[in-house]
This record gives sequence, C-alpha cells and structure tokens, in this order.
Amino acid sequence: MTAINPPLIANRTPDWAPLRALVGDRFSENAAVRAHHGRAESFFAAMPPDAVFFALTTEEVAAAMRFCADRSVPIIPYGAGTSLEGNFLAPRGGLCIDLSLMNEILHVNAEDLDCTVQAGVTRKQLNEDLRNTGLFFPIDPGADATLGGMAATRASGTNAVRYGTMRQNVLGLKVVLPDGRIIQTGGRARKSSAGYDLTNLFVGSEGTLGIITEVTVRLYGQPDAILAATCSFETLRGAVSAVIETIQLGVPVARIEFLDALQVHAINLYSKTTLPERPTLFLEFHGTQSGAAEQTAMFRDIAKTHGAGNYATADTTEARSALWDARHKALYADLALRPGAQAIVTDVCVPISRLADCVEDARRAIDESGLIAPIVGHVGDGNFHVIMLVKPEEQGEIDRAHKLSERIVELALAHDGTCTGEHGIGIGKKHYLRQEHGDAVDLMRAIKRAIDPAGILNPDKIFDETLGAATAAPS
Amino acid sequence: MTAINPPLIANRTPDWAPLRALVGDRFSENAAVRAHHGRAESFFAAMPPDAVFFALTTEEVAAAMRFCADRSVPIIPYGAGTSLEGNFLAPRGGLCIDLSLMNEILHVNAEDLDCTVQAGVTRKQLNEDLRNTGLFFPIDPGADATLGGMAATRASGTNAVRYGTMRQNVLGLKVVLPDGRIIQTGGRARKSSAGYDLTNLFVGSEGTLGIITEVTVRLYGQPDAILAATCSFETLRGAVSAVIETIQLGVPVARIEFLDALQVHAINLYSKTTLPERPTLFLEFHGTQSGAAEQTAMFRDIAKTHGAGNYATADTTEARSALWDARHKALYADLALRPGAQAIVTDVCVPISRLADCVEDARRAIDESGLIAPIVGHVGDGNFHVIMLVKPEEQGEIDRAHKLSERIVELALAHDGTCTGEHGIGIGKKHYLRQEHGDAVDLMRAIKRAIDPAGILNPDKIFDETLGAATAAPS
Repeated sequence: MTAINPPLIANRTPDWAPLRALVGDRFSENAAVRAHHGRAESFFAAMPPDAVFFALTTEEVAAAMRFCADRSVPIIPYGAGTSLEGNFLAPRGGLCIDLSLMNEILHVNAEDLDCTVQAGVTRKQLNEDLRNTGLFFPIDPGADATLGGMAATRASGTNAVRYGTMRQNVLGLKVVLPDGRIIQTGGRARKSSAGYDLTNLFVGSEGTLGIITEVTVRLYGQPDAILAATCSFETLRGAVSAVIETIQLGVPVARIEFLDALQVHAINLYSKTTLPERPTLFLEFHGTQSGAAEQTAMFRDIAKTHGAGNYATADTTEARSALWDARHKALYADLALRPGAQAIVTDVCVPISRLADCVEDARRAIDESGLIAPIVGHVGDGNFHVIMLVKPEEQGEIDRAHKLSERIVELALAHDGTCTGEHGIGIGKKHYLRQEHGDAVDLMRAIKRAIDPAGILNPDKIFDETLGAATAAPS
Repeated sequence: MTAINPPLIANRTPDWAPLRALVGDRFSENAAVRAHHGRAESFFAAMPPDAVFFALTTEEVAAAMRFCADRSVPIIPYGAGTSLEGNFLAPRGGLCIDLSLMNEILHVNAEDLDCTVQAGVTRKQLNEDLRNTGLFFPIDPGADATLGGMAATRASGTNAVRYGTMRQNVLGLKVVLPDGRIIQTGGRARKSSAGYDLTNLFVGSEGTLGIITEVTVRLYGQPDAILAATCSFETLRGAVSAVIETIQLGVPVARIEFLDALQVHAINLYSKTTLPERPTLFLEFHGTQSGAAEQTAMFRDIAKTHGAGNYATADTTEARSALWDARHKALYADLALRPGAQAIVTDVCVPISRLADCVEDARRAIDESGLIAPIVGHVGDGNFHVIMLVKPEEQGEIDRAHKLSERIVELALAHDGTCTGEHGIGIGKKHYLRQEHGDAVDLMRAIKRAIDPAGILNPDKIFDETLGAATAAPS
C-alpha cells in the first residue's frame, strides 16, 4: 500500500480539436487566459496550464475528463483562483477546467435549512441570493471563493468557531471521477450511517480525487441580533488568554479574531480606522437580543481579567460591515505597508490551550528573522496566520521567509497542531504532510491510487512524487 | 473500479497456537464465549466467530490482525455488542477481536475540551469519569456502547440535534489496518486542511477498513441549566409539526424525541409512568439559566399552535433521569408489551420538511400490515425508528415485518432520506445501499479493495459480495 503512483508522463500536446468542437470558444489556448489560470494570489512561480476549458455543465466536465484520461493529460480544477497554497497551479501543464461559469443556485430548501448550488457559485453570490429568505451561509474565508473551491480545500475563516468549517457544513456533493463517471455523495437527511463518508473524503482533497460540480450545504437562520466589537489588550498574551477562556467557558461567540499591533497599524493606514495600535480582538456575537447581550457581558468580564483596554462596539450594520471589511482586507493592508513586497502567508492551527505559547513563540521567531510580518488569526479555533512581506529582489529575504515559515510550522507541530488550518497542502506544504501524519500518508496515497490510478488529477498537489517512495511496508 | 473483492475463502481451521501463546486465556474457543459474540440484540440468526481474542493493547490487535492476514482468517471487531444491524456477526467465522478490556481513559484535556480513550471505554464510563471536571460527552445512543463501536457505526442518538453525531465529534483515531500497520488519523487541533479526512473515512466504516483502538473526541461544558419536559399532542402530525417548526426557527434544543401513542402506552406499563397516552415529545433544553428558559418559552409558543396538550416539566435531576431512563428503555418496554416477541427495528432519516408526511405514511403502513409496532424517533434530526414486535412462530409474521421494513425504507428514500440514520448498514441493509447511493457504491468498494484487498475485515458487512458484480464500468 506504500507504492506510489507511477510518475505521470504528462501529454502536453494532445489534439485539442474534440474539446474545441464540444464547447467552442469556451475552450481557450490564449496565453493571457492561461497565465491568468496559472498565477496564485500568494508567492509561487507562475505555472500555467496548456489550455483552459470553461464548463457549463457536469456532463461537459465529464466529457473533458474522459478526453484527458484517454490521453494522459493532467486535469486541474479552478474556481475563483483565491486559494493560497498554489492549489491550482499546473506544474505539468494540462487542461485547466474552470468552473466559474457553473454559477447557478439550483435549489434552496428553506424549510430544511440547506441548498444545492453549482460549484462555481461564490459565497457572496449565495448570501446575496438568500438575503430575503431569513437564512445565510456562514462560512467566510474572506475572499469571495466559490463553494466548490471552498469544499475542495476544506475552507473555513472567521465564523468557523461557531458554525464549523466546510467539513461540518457540506451535506453532499456531485463529483466527476477521473474516468468521467459522475457520482452523488451524501444526501439531504441531516444524518446517515449508510456506507463510507465519501463527502468528507472529497472535502479537503484539493481536486486530487475528483472534480466537484455541485455542492449541498447547510444554511442557518439569520440571527435576531448581531453585536460586533473590537477590544484592545495591553499584551499579546492577554488578548490570546481572553480568547482561550472565552472558548473554554463555552461562550458561543460567532467570530473572535486576533490582530497583533503591527496588523492593527496596517489596517489603520489602509482602511482609515483609528484603532488603538495594540493587540486587538475583533468580535461578533449572534443570538436572540438577550442571548447576544449575555454573551457580550460574559466576554467583557473575561477580557477585564486579561488586561483589556478599549472596547468599542459597532452597533449599526454599516459600522459592522466596515469592521469586517477592514479585517478581510488585512492582506492588502499588509501589502500596502511595504510597497512592492509580496506576501508569503503561513497557516497553522494548534489546540487552544497551546495558542498563547505558540503565538508568542511565533512572534519571537518573526522578531529574530528581522522580517516584517504581522499576525492575524481565527484564534477561537486556534488558527493563526503570519503574513511575511518580502521583496524577492532583497538579498536573502525569500530564504529567510521560507526558514521562518518552516520554523512556525515546526512550532505548531511541537504544540500538537497542524501545518495548515484552512489553506490546504497544495504545492507548498507537501513536505510537512508526513511530518504531521506519518504512515497515515501511505493510506492517503493508496486511496489516491485507487481512485486516480493514472495520477492525472491535479498532479503534484498534496503528495510529493518522491516522498514516501523509500518507505518499506513495515509488516 | 467496479470490480469487487474476490470472494473470501475463509480459513476456519488455522492453528491458533500463536495467538494463545501471545495472550494466554484472553484467547478463547469456548462455545459460550463464541455464542455470546455471535448474537446480536436484534433479530438475526446467531453467527458465532470461531474464536475470540480479548485485546489489551493496540499492539496485540496488530499482532492478531497480522496472524489473520497471513492465514486468510476473517476478522470481526467487537465492542459492547449493542449494535442493531448485525454489524459484528461472523457469517464466515473467523477471529472476533473483543476490545472491551481496552477501557482506559488515556488523556482528558479539559482546557481543550477533548479527550483520548481506548476504544473499549463506554460512554457512561467516560461521563462518570468526567463528572467532576465540569465537562461531558454528549453523544448518547441509549445503549451503553463503547466509543470505538460508536465511531465505527457513526452513532448518534438523542443529543445529536444539538451536538451532532460521531461524524462531528471524533477528532482523531488510532487504527490498525488489515495488514497490522498502526496509523493515527486527525489530530487535536480543532481544524486542519492537511490531507484527506481519514478520520471520517473510518467513522461509519463498521470495521470493514480497520480496527479502531483509540478515539479522540470533543467534550462540552456541562450546561449551567438543564430543563427537561414532556409535551403531549392531539395528533401525530401536530407533534411532528411542532418539532419541524422548532428546528426551522433555530431553537437550539438539546433533545427532542417523538413517541407515538402506542410507545407511550408501553412506557407507562414498563416504567410505571402516567403519561397521557397520546403522541408525545420528550424535550431537553441546555444553556444559561435565562437561555434555557428562553428556549422553553419559544418551544411552548410553537407547541400551542400545533395542538399541544399536557406540558410537564421534570425539574429535579432525579425526575430528569427517570424521564430519559424511560425513553432509553423504550425497546424493552416494547418487548414487554408482547411477551415472547422479538424486535425488528427500522432506522430511517429524512429531511425535516418531509418528516410529518413520512411518519404518517409509516404509521399507515404499519396499520395496514397488522403488526404491533410503536414509533419512536430522534425527530429533531428527521430520524425515526419503527419497532416491530414479531413472534417467529406466528405464521408469516417475519415475512410481513420484512415487507413492512422494506416499505418504510422505500418511503424514506422517496422522501429524499436515508435507509439508516444511525444504526449502519451491517448485514441487514446491504440491499438498500445501492438504491440510496447508486454508483457511489462502486467508489466505496474501490476504497475497501485498496485498504483490505483480501477482504478479511468484517466480511459481508456494508457490501453484498454479489451486488455490483454485474455493473459494467460506464465509461
């Protein structure tokens, strides 16, 4: 079971005529289109596909995949292009299947609090559509990602502390397998013990096992009351300790986001806010009027014992939107902090009891590195990011950033955590997977091999072709 | 990928000496011990294993599995023996690996709200151990099942409407694979996007992919306030409609259980209660004092509009325990209703919007069958059971029960539901799996084949050896 897929000999010059005949100008070999699909938001070299196929239906996806399977052409699924670990880059070329035109909301079952959408629907589009139903879809990774992409990377974001990640919120999927077969996983019943959980096998598989074309997700009633606030602290440890105690006491906070002093400074400059430039929490409480007020009071009591300073509420819808808009633009604020720089973003997650130590250790490691790198985090889950601002032209900066990134992952693993809380392994974190999961990686590979024996689906993602090859079966 | 495992030629007469040498009298071929391990609580013929191995450590489990793998001996994992679909029967004999002696609670991480236990720890044992920590483990299938067994069948029960099923509550597993390799899945961080979700692949796999020897689960703070009550209704539809509206309005009820009039009658006789013998809900609300009271008030307002009659609170801990004890003994109360009868229990689950129709359809089908069969259900999830009381010696009763059971599953599937909400496929529901999941079953089989190529792990469970063999690959 430790055997790996044979290295894929990618066919980069197939006769594309059948695909062009199938979808006309929704097939493209245009250099600009290819470049657009081969460039991640974060710091990776451009790796464009050989062609791009804009699908409109599941059947078209299946036809394209059969074409590729018959010709050993790599297949790379693409949603909104917002993923951060190079998850959709095409290091071996191949056919990029762009799902962004599959953006139909198929069914909203308000009574059952679920809906089924095509994979290219974005979270903002869905919530816009739901506005008058009294329902909403809470998972919010910041970027306006597609639901298919969010499922594929097991995305989460600011609301996960209360509503869970895609793992908890995807009820079912329509998936095209590498040989073009179409299957439906899961179902609309809220629970089932009927067979293996294929839904959660595809959620987080980063397009390496199949292409998701439809997603059924849970919805939630819009809360009666939403109270948002910011709260600054004297120390980083004070802020993080307040989070830990809030979670441990079971306060059902909807969002609890940490920003270090440097991140607050960047936001003040970029979003024209006047927040105290100290370690700060951005908070949101959902519930009935009395329930949300009770949560707020509980949090404020906790915060006081950890050196809380200024507590500012965002009472109106506009003020609340401005607050979260500023938070979501943290990455752009950071880039503006050092014009010309690019961002390398880490993404680790640790058990909440280790969070204060791990964030402090990370801050120390950043300071030792001499890099400019704010810290932000969905700390209610123990998840935080270090945003390293580097200029490739500055001697050795990239190297230092990679070393710092490695150091932060090692800190997280030493604190019983994971090398990625929500961005995925992609092309950038393959070398940490075995460090974190040991021989369980061989089982992942066995599953990959069973479903995609030719290795054509999103090659070089999650697994490194050379990793694990030397591991002998222990029994 | 549609190919099935070669039919297992089970070796039923290996030389057991190495296993006896390994664990002494924790290996047994005693007829009574074998019989005890080959008899399900529900209606299945006895199918004893050829021998039973009582493991104390993961390494012993691995050694036993290597022994079996080398000799084509079937392996059947066994916990508390409380599963209901014959999940641990041994139709091809083989070695039963009993994990009940692996009952150590390894770590309780109160700060992180999680704990790691050996697979043989039961849910009552765990909660007893947690009593003074302020924490509890909510998943409650009624029977005092082991955590390993609960993970393997994706169990849930009365609290799932608020706290989720094992799917949402298992953070990680230690698993022995069929060739004896030991892997660790998941981790203690609350979220991770690092690789495939092996944890949820094993949760619900019913011992067909590996044997779970350790389980890491989420814990929750014991709520400040617990309010329990019963509420009777004029009609079945009224009771179920009240549930639907409660869920749709997002009242975070912790338990909401339906019992039809016949079930209430049985409980009154068996547990000496004096409940009105009408369609009834058993309820529990968890929260702060004010939060729980607010939930209660919201529910009562809803119930009034659906013909609620008597609403009786169970205010003391003793009264609450008596209430849930009576609910958990529903099966025994039913058996007492018809002395000498055995129970065949169905377990379907539908989207909440379909629940009233489906339960009414089921009640009509029961009445047409002429069988005695109360209905109970974890209706907050859309999950309900029909408990058919049959006497094998009565001409044709078994046949009628099987036909009724089939009819109820068909009703559930027609209502967009699942053939099993929480009991699993086991040996009894294999023929429904393809009806529900179509070609996705071929993918499940491909995974089974990749992990257990010899087919020695819990053979004849989930998949029928003949099913799917005739399915040609469609592409």
